[in-house]
Amino acid sequence: MMIYEHGTLVTVDAQRRVITDGAMAVENGRFVAIDKSHVLHERFPNEPRTDLKGRIVTPGLINTHVHLAQAMIRGCAEDMELLDWLGKRVWVLQGNYTEEDGRASAELCILEMLKSGTTAFVESMLAERYGFDGIAEVVLRSGIRAVLAKIVMDIGTYATKDSWMHPGMIEDRETSLRNTLAMHDKWNGAGNGRLRVWFGPRTPGGVTPELYREISALARQRNMGITVHLAEVQADRLFLQEKYGKTPAQFAEDVGLVGPNVLLVHAVWMDEDDIAILARTQTNVSHNPVSNAKLASGIAPIPEMLAAGVNVALGTDGGPSNNTYDMVRDMRWASYIHKARTLNPLVMPAETVLEMATIHGAKAIGLEKEIGSLEVGKQADFVVFDLDKPHLTPHMDAVSTLVSAATGADVDMVVIGGQVVVRDGHVLTMDEERVLREARERAAAVWKRAGIEWKPRWPVL
Amino acid sequence: MMIYEHGTLVTVDAQRRVITDGAMAVENGRFVAIDKSHVLHERFPNEPRTDLKGRIVTPGLINTHVHLAQAMIRGCAEDMELLDWLGKRVWVLQGNYTEEDGRASAELCILEMLKSGTTAFVESMLAERYGFDGIAEVVLRSGIRAVLAKIVMDIGTYATKDSWMHPGMIEDRETSLRNTLAMHDKWNGAGNGRLRVWFGPRTPGGVTPELYREISALARQRNMGITVHLAEVQADRLFLQEKYGKTPAQFAEDVGLVGPNVLLVHAVWMDEDDIAILARTQTNVSHNPVSNAKLASGIAPIPEMLAAGVNVALGTDGGPSNNTYDMVRDMRWASYIHKARTLNPLVMPAETVLEMATIHGAKAIGLEKEIGSLEVGKQADFVVFDLDKPHLTPHMDAVSTLVSAATGADVDMVVIGGQVVVRDGHVLTMDEERVLREARERAAAVWKRAGIEWKPRWPVL
Repeated sequence: MMIYEHGTLVTVDAQRRVITDGAMAVENGRFVAIDKSHVLHERFPNEPRTDLKGRIVTPGLINTHVHLAQAMIRGCAEDMELLDWLGKRVWVLQGNYTEEDGRASAELCILEMLKSGTTAFVESMLAERYGFDGIAEVVLRSGIRAVLAKIVMDIGTYATKDSWMHPGMIEDRETSLRNTLAMHDKWNGAGNGRLRVWFGPRTPGGVTPELYREISALARQRNMGITVHLAEVQADRLFLQEKYGKTPAQFAEDVGLVGPNVLLVHAVWMDEDDIAILARTQTNVSHNPVSNAKLASGIAPIPEMLAAGVNVALGTDGGPSNNTYDMVRDMRWASYIHKARTLNPLVMPAETVLEMATIHGAKAIGLEKEIGSLEVGKQADFVVFDLDKPHLTPHMDAVSTLVSAATGADVDMVVIGGQVVVRDGHVLTMDEERVLREARERAAAVWKRAGIEWKPRWPVL
Repeated sequence: MMIYEHGTLVTVDAQRRVITDGAMAVENGRFVAIDKSHVLHERFPNEPRTDLKGRIVTPGLINTHVHLAQAMIRGCAEDMELLDWLGKRVWVLQGNYTEEDGRASAELCILEMLKSGTTAFVESMLAERYGFDGIAEVVLRSGIRAVLAKIVMDIGTYATKDSWMHPGMIEDRETSLRNTLAMHDKWNGAGNGRLRVWFGPRTPGGVTPELYREISALARQRNMGITVHLAEVQADRLFLQEKYGKTPAQFAEDVGLVGPNVLLVHAVWMDEDDIAILARTQTNVSHNPVSNAKLASGIAPIPEMLAAGVNVALGTDGGPSNNTYDMVRDMRWASYIHKARTLNPLVMPAETVLEMATIHGAKAIGLEKEIGSLEVGKQADFVVFDLDKPHLTPHMDAVSTLVSAATGADVDMVVIGGQVVVRDGHVLTMDEERVLREARERAAAVWKRAGIEWKPRWPVL
């Protein structure tokens, strides 16, 4: 057992209690007691203890939309049109990955996430070429909790007529489906339940309605989740209208992409009727405010979704679209950008955003009984923030300080399932120097193999 | 002399050169040579040197809109309507400041700015009660470069009929004007030119057109600058239309608030005609994207202003509206929020944003010949970033990495006028621990004196 004491605990429990001078007793990876420090002191006087004085503790942050392979190509496509962004950079680079590149990028990504307080994440589209096994092993070694969703697709000619999908990114129906099931058989539940395997089908441009329906049925049979990008840009909405005569949510419902086991990503171009469908079907949404802003996709109607009762979680998206995987930084975006759009300062208060980053994220991956809050019986996943810094001084309120002023660099300690994974800002489960060095070297090699060059806009001497 | 060598120098010079493995020779506070390291090595073989290997160097960041007094009340008013924000929190707290509070808050603010790479700032509205002398002394001791603009106002009843301006924030015409001139006489040019004194008149609700005209004339006579909030919220635009029958820029031109010595702040509610007036009169704009988003003021038409040739600089605004003074973090906002609004990913590229934060800022305060770029003959104001971190690895491009992925926490060293002010992330000119402790204690006392209490939205045990 370990007692973590004297912290300000932002529990996000059912009553949303904030416990000042609070303590948590952790045993066998779970919280066995949470209360004021003096109560736990009396109850467990002789157990080892960790002092969190002056620190704020939150549930572990849950990043519901990640592309592991894109960490190594962060910043590869700046200030570009989406089609160029994908067709001339992102897919060309990713289409040249080897399995060792996939593994190295996953390590870089997980290293960054752990340091910045993320304890669980959803990888949305693992391609065959990234090497599922190697990445699963990285997840298990690192101590993080993950949903790895594997790409499924069947429109092999996806956009190849316009030749903007790199051939290295195309997979066939049979292989992609079979291997997803094989990886589910092999890895789901590994690491004491830390690893889950989902379906990660491509967008409707790469998948037929028939295949979506088959995925939906298989997911029900196997109790698997599905995550899919939907209505990220206006062109996605127009495509579905033209090709299928349906709005995004109508299409999703028609092909079985709705329900509590479905996590739709972005959902920027949704109207009132779409939102009603998501609410009625209890479909989850991953909001990626920074990515949507950077790629000029738009601003998703999140306050409207929350008002309708949709479960909205938070995600960062990938290296070329964000360009970081820092959930703490992105909480501020999720709060402020909707105030700017609606001209209403009351929408998206800090508390709502922290819920999105924690308990809503847990629900979005079907784990709201296991993680997402500091509660007795749940897995001991938590983040400790050090507020003893100029930009966080003074702080009136733990929640708004985190959302409005903190960044991932203020994370001091991270615990996942009772294991201390980050201490004093250092990741204990990874060799940071080796990961950074390898990412640099492999990134350079990938650019070379892909035969493209970085062209700076300012003259470089 | 000191040679800083082996860094990647993002010069923002006339050619916008980026010099890899570059070096800068600094003597008597100014750059005397900037070139590839091997060139400076041959030219100055025996001078002392500082190794910047693996580091990126930019000109010092210039924060063109700061409220020093608000650092100590950061986060005091979250998710509130603007009138409540001002009338129930910000002005009530500030209206209870003593001069010692004003000094302590300035120290906290400058400490945060220095650590995050800001080398010069504009304080927009110093009230009498904050104590000008004490704050000027803090500026000089800290090593930072500052424009301190002192409040001028003459509508003593400013909003008091609705009783939402705290009496402690009201000053009379004669005192506010006389003391601004006295402070200009006393402090302008102090610290080897590091300190400048400007006019900081209140918005048109607190100042008559006659007083604006008088300020404008005095500023011309004395070669002083003027900074003023204009058209921050839609109500400001409606107010000017109703009361004076003018748009914001028409009003500004009418009362003498235009020209190269004028820095308008926010300028959110400006139309095409307003923008044309700003461009024609060479009036400067301070863009504060985070503040405008958080307070639901709106999104300023910055790409339109830049296209029209307006000099737009960057600012953070104050503690309750941002809630940090981190220019690096806010560069990402300045880039992405306009992409989201215009649905055009090509607007506001990283290079433009870095210009706003450096050379445009210098121009906005009339110092473009002295600071704002790494150029021989200019003051040696620069910032060194450490990119050897997961969230900055790998980096393709120095500029986009800084704008898209860095934060102020990645600042390693800051030099102002040749003086090393920050080294290894530590501010050498201030006692950080004392500043934080005093800010905490004084903030608590101010809240108590103001007779208001923080009401958390979640239950605190």
